[in-house]
Order: sequence, then C-alpha cells, then structure tokens
Amino acid sequence: METASVESTPRRRGRPPKSTATALDTRAALLRCGMELLTEKGFHSTGLDELLARAGVTKGSFYHCFPSKEVFGLAVIDAYDAYFAGKLDRSLLSTERQPLDRIADFIADARAGMVRHHFRRGCLIGNLGQDSPALPEAYRDRLERVFLDWQARLARCLELARDAGLIADSANCNELAEFFWIGWEGAVLRSKLMASPRPLDVFTTAFFSMLPR
Amino acid sequence: METASVESTPRRRGRPPKSTATALDTRAALLRCGMELLTEKGFHSTGLDELLARAGVTKGSFYHCFPSKEVFGLAVIDAYDAYFAGKLDRSLLSTERQPLDRIADFIADARAGMVRHHFRRGCLIGNLGQDSPALPEAYRDRLERVFLDWQARLARCLELARDAGLIADSANCNELAEFFWIGWEGAVLRSKLMASPRPLDVFTTAFFSMLPR
Repeated sequence: METASVESTPRRRGRPPKSTATALDTRAALLRCGMELLTEKGFHSTGLDELLARAGVTKGSFYHCFPSKEVFGLAVIDAYDAYFAGKLDRSLLSTERQPLDRIADFIADARAGMVRHHFRRGCLIGNLGQDSPALPEAYRDRLERVFLDWQARLARCLELARDAGLIADSANCNELAEFFWIGWEGAVLRSKLMASPRPLDVFTTAFFSMLPR
Repeated sequence: METASVESTPRRRGRPPKSTATALDTRAALLRCGMELLTEKGFHSTGLDELLARAGVTKGSFYHCFPSKEVFGLAVIDAYDAYFAGKLDRSLLSTERQPLDRIADFIADARAGMVRHHFRRGCLIGNLGQDSPALPEAYRDRLERVFLDWQARLARCLELARDAGLIADSANCNELAEFFWIGWEGAVLRSKLMASPRPLDVFTTAFFSMLPR
C-alpha cells in the first residue's frame, strides 16, 4: 500500500533526511494526482505530460519513482484501494450506528463526493474496469481483487444486520454484497453521464428494498 | 440513423452509381469498425490510424466522410443506437413470447454476444458514458437520450407484463426500467473485467426477483 492518502500511517519522529523526504513527496504527489486523473479520465486518456504538469514533477523524477506508466498505474490502484478501504471502514465499522445505517452512511458519503466534484470523478476501479480489455493483463486481477475486498467488507456489515434481526435470517449476505457492487458501478457511471445523483438514488432505493426483511 | 448494421433497410433496385456506392461503402465500413473499436476501447483509446487500418480506408477518405473524429464519434453513436434498437425490438416486440420472457430473451442474446466476443466488447453507450467527463459536451446529451430510449422500450414491455397480470398492478414500470439500465451497465462492466457472465447473471436474477408479483 502506498502513502498518498494514508494519513494514519505511523511516522518516525523527526524529519527524514531531505533527499528521502523529497523522493517520498514526489511519489505521493504523483500518486495523488494519478488517482485524480485516472478517476476522471481512465488510464489511456491520461497523458504523462498532464500528470507531470498537475503534480509539478519532471519526467526524470517520474521515472526515478516508477519504471513505466504501467507500473505507475498499478501503484495508483494500490493507493486508491487503501484510500477507499479507509473510507468504507469509517462507515461500515462505525459502532455508533446500526449496520444498515452504516451502509447508508457510506452511500451518502460517496454521493456527496460525486456532487462535490461536479460528477466529473466517479470510481477509479470502475473506470479502469471499463477499460480492462485494453489494459495490461496484470490490471485485471488486481482490479477484481479490489472488488472482492469491498464485497467482503459489505458482506460483513450485512451479516451484522442479519445478526441484529434487521434483515431476514435467510439473507445471503455475500450475494447481496456482490449484487451491490455490480449495480453500484453502473449507478456511478450513469451519474457521471447525467451529472446528477439520481442514478445513485434509484439504485440505493432498489438495493434497500430488495433486502429480505 | 446510419446504415452500418441495419440489414433490413429497404434498398432501391439495381446498383447505385459506382462513386456513390463507394462513398456509402466507405462510410459504412468506418461506422462498423468504429462501433467495434469504441465498444472495445472507448473514444480516447481508439486511434484514427487503428480505425483506418481496420476499415481499410485512407485518411483522405475518412475526412471526405467526416470532418473530425468528434463528428465521427457522434455518427458511431447513431449507428449503434439504430443497431441496438433493432436488437431490443427483436426481443421485446416478439408477439410469440410472453413479456417477461421477451426481456429474458434480450438478456440471453446480449449475454451470448459478450461470450462470443470473449468479453472484450461490452456496451458502446456505457463505455462512452464512463468517459463522458472527458468527451465533447454534445456526447453527453446524445448518450443520455439513448439510455432514455432503451428505458422507454423496456418500460413498455413491463407494462405489457403488468397488463397480462405477470407482475403486480402496483409496479412502477418506468422506475423498474430505469433501474434495469443503471444496473445493467454495471453488470456489463464487471463481466468485461472478470471475463465471465456471472455479473450479468447475478444482476438478472436480482432484477427478476425484485419485480412485484
């Protein structure tokens, strides 16, 4: 996991030597800008020059951190994975809220993020998943593993809801979580196109209504 | 609407003059290859050179037919719209089948198409919808109109199912159709990524199970 958005990583006391700090800053800036650009535009539409301009990094410094755009893309997926897992955990592991409310909280948070970015940013994993036939083969497994991780986190929260009697004992939490992420990516895609939260809302309403009670 | 894949368009008797035929052939070949490439790779990942090589057309002939790649892309959307509307109608207007079976037929047909192309081709409208923040503004309205047309066609079929007593009188057919296309695009995306029909199947099962009976 990379450090671009992992603010909770323990730090050693004191400042690191300047050269190390600079290399880490450069890497973090590239990953942060890479997440932004790949979430907006996908892999192939993001040019290296645009990335370097946004990050304020020279081509030489880029290749000092990453041997190729392909390797960089995988590191961006790792960074987004860490960022999004943290985002999911903040909602889904919140013991102050009932399990179904935690899911609603995650959705509200993601929805607010799309509104804040004027629907220009969706989901990096969905964007790259859409392009997967044209992406390096290693990306496919990596992206699918991210979806399976999100699925497992959501399934655990649904199991808590089931244990608490909020949904029926017969609920297949893993299948429901699988369905959620399949449909969610469609909703994010359509919300970007319409520049409207309506598809997220339509999907969310349908998802909660199909939970067996 | 363009003619790339509209095999049922009535033809005038006899061969058209050679120069006209050639121009139409060139345009049809470009649109057919454009649909293939944009369905596989999206707009920005599809280079003009790749398109010309696949269609066997020179750059001069391309610009004789289309003033720009942007205009070409809109013509490809029109061609795909005509192709897909025909595909939908073949299933959804089939009077030999009950309305819900017609929907299942469309899904089975689309699923078979994805399997046949080894999950490299998904949905051109979904692909471009994913890239919409980075596409010319005119594309956004055009793509959304295609979705609304598909939604209307599916809603009419659901209304037939409701009239036949196959789903409950209380069913909101337009909302169900809206939900279908939101989730369907997510399922196509994930099936491409997994190179598996499973996401289509998971979504289909959930859709039919949520129809009020």
